[in-house]
Amino acid sequence: MGKVIGAFRAHVTWANPKGKWPDIIFSTRVRLARNLAGAAFPHSAPAAALRGIRETALETAKATRLFARGHYLKTDALSPLEKKFLVERHHISHNLASSERAGAVAVSNDEDLAVMVNEEDHLRLQSIASGFSIDAALGAVNRLDAELGRLLPYAFNAKFGFLTACPTNVGTGMRVSCLVHLPALSRAGRMPGLLESLSRLGVTARGIYGEGTCVLGDFYQISNATCLGRSEEEFCADLDRTIANLIRLEISAREELVIPGVRLKTEDGVFRAYGLLKNARSVSYGEFMQNLSLVRMGAAMGYSIRTDFGTLNQFALLMQPAHLEAMAGRPLGPDERDAERAAYIRKNLN
Amino acid sequence: MGKVIGAFRAHVTWANPKGKWPDIIFSTRVRLARNLAGAAFPHSAPAAALRGIRETALETAKATRLFARGHYLKTDALSPLEKKFLVERHHISHNLASSERAGAVAVSNDEDLAVMVNEEDHLRLQSIASGFSIDAALGAVNRLDAELGRLLPYAFNAKFGFLTACPTNVGTGMRVSCLVHLPALSRAGRMPGLLESLSRLGVTARGIYGEGTCVLGDFYQISNATCLGRSEEEFCADLDRTIANLIRLEISAREELVIPGVRLKTEDGVFRAYGLLKNARSVSYGEFMQNLSLVRMGAAMGYSIRTDFGTLNQFALLMQPAHLEAMAGRPLGPDERDAERAAYIRKNLN
Repeated sequence: MGKVIGAFRAHVTWANPKGKWPDIIFSTRVRLARNLAGAAFPHSAPAAALRGIRETALETAKATRLFARGHYLKTDALSPLEKKFLVERHHISHNLASSERAGAVAVSNDEDLAVMVNEEDHLRLQSIASGFSIDAALGAVNRLDAELGRLLPYAFNAKFGFLTACPTNVGTGMRVSCLVHLPALSRAGRMPGLLESLSRLGVTARGIYGEGTCVLGDFYQISNATCLGRSEEEFCADLDRTIANLIRLEISAREELVIPGVRLKTEDGVFRAYGLLKNARSVSYGEFMQNLSLVRMGAAMGYSIRTDFGTLNQFALLMQPAHLEAMAGRPLGPDERDAERAAYIRKNLN
Repeated sequence: MGKVIGAFRAHVTWANPKGKWPDIIFSTRVRLARNLAGAAFPHSAPAAALRGIRETALETAKATRLFARGHYLKTDALSPLEKKFLVERHHISHNLASSERAGAVAVSNDEDLAVMVNEEDHLRLQSIASGFSIDAALGAVNRLDAELGRLLPYAFNAKFGFLTACPTNVGTGMRVSCLVHLPALSRAGRMPGLLESLSRLGVTARGIYGEGTCVLGDFYQISNATCLGRSEEEFCADLDRTIANLIRLEISAREELVIPGVRLKTEDGVFRAYGLLKNARSVSYGEFMQNLSLVRMGAAMGYSIRTDFGTLNQFALLMQPAHLEAMAGRPLGPDERDAERAAYIRKNLN
């Protein structure tokens, strides 16, 4: 398993359901794209410059003391499993994991703060919080940004705001997103229409791992699509309204699942999913998430299921392939993974 | 629920796994077709004659003392639910249940002996026993036949043997059948080929309720196709060999389900089925039987399932629609039945 993964906690702090609306909002993230003045963006910078930026970034992160007893990891020193683990943990992106550049990430001890180095931008600051917690996540990433900004010369233009490698991030450089669980709206077939309306409102919906990833277990990552023309607070307030609206819609869709004539089918679906998770001997991550979704909804709707959101949320993270291999302490083929996953769930779903 | 159904036992004695090979052979039945000399066959006899035959048959059955504390039921006095109940219990046929003729059935207290009156033939004598028990079932029906034959003039021809309404029954008038559970052969896709071979050997395979009914839960009713040209003992010995061969094939198919590379899939299927039965809130009889089949196979293969053949066999009978209505004590719509079935299984599968 190695030292890198072993240094992370067995359970993910921000996956414990402590924020608001834990039954619908899994987590809230805010990320800020920042670049260093006078240096070329990562995609066009020479390798030596990127290595220098990486050293500077990691030293500066250390200097903020926000990453005390945290993790400072250079991607070229990581094994494929370790990189996959960090992607699953939401600390680095697929892009950074597969990049040949001198990348790095600093992760705080609680795993609620991270700085990715030399991904698309020199710095990607990220704060993640449990539940529906836009203010808390924005506050935390702003403190990190202020600390780093005191020590590093950010590329900033008075007219445009923060300069970024991709024009869609110019301005605030901010993306605020909530990972929302919408099983009832999904079941009612309302998601395609809703996603279209959201996109007209300048809101993007993605799969769990961001751009280009598929939706698993009815979890959607909802975020602002643009960064320019308004303040961070305005973008956040917008997303806050959007998410509050989705919560209302999901709640009313759940109420429709318990009206006479439908109630039994809902309960049947929830408990079949529970029975599958509690008994299967082999289960893929996709099938697992599909059934987790129903059990999670059932727990939210008050069905007598012997589990809790904390357990289910941890499952969603820990049952991913690299996490399973890390737990097993050895490489696993796909069949072995599915068997390990089923065994872990059987043992811990209670 | 009414007196008729209430007089039957809550559990079916012959469904308890007491015979040989209870994991593969559910039950063995022998039936004899008999007719009264000098009377027209039921399909062409006048109503008054059939009523007379019915009285004679029931009185004679009573006189044998084999039906002491048993059931004497005239079909025209039965409600549709009661008739359906008796069909599900294997005491009368669909044909008799839907016939307008003056039909009847006598059933012994243990439900192991029955005489149907005025179905296709004047008399259909039946013996049913748990497991693989051809000798026992033949012995029991022969005793019943001897008793009735002493008191009634059978239509018998020295050259052809017993005369019957349908030429396929002429001769011995005997059909011997085993209800066999072949989940591993079914899963291996070997049943179509096997059924074809059996049919070339003069062996018929049918669904649980006989001719024209479909196969449920991998249960097949295997019986001799002809009645003429050999003795009862020879037909029985033939079927005995056929069934012994099917048992060997099923066992070796089960062994193939636990070789490396397949074992996990088998175990997964068994436990998923168990989880479904233990958790579903609504389940049709077909889906129930499909999952029961896997759980039954799993129990036979030594998987740690908290159940036994007795419970599972009783389920197969008691979870039928009319039995469920009888238990509920009121008419049930299909959705209610599926919910009652799921609730009963959840409660009793342990």
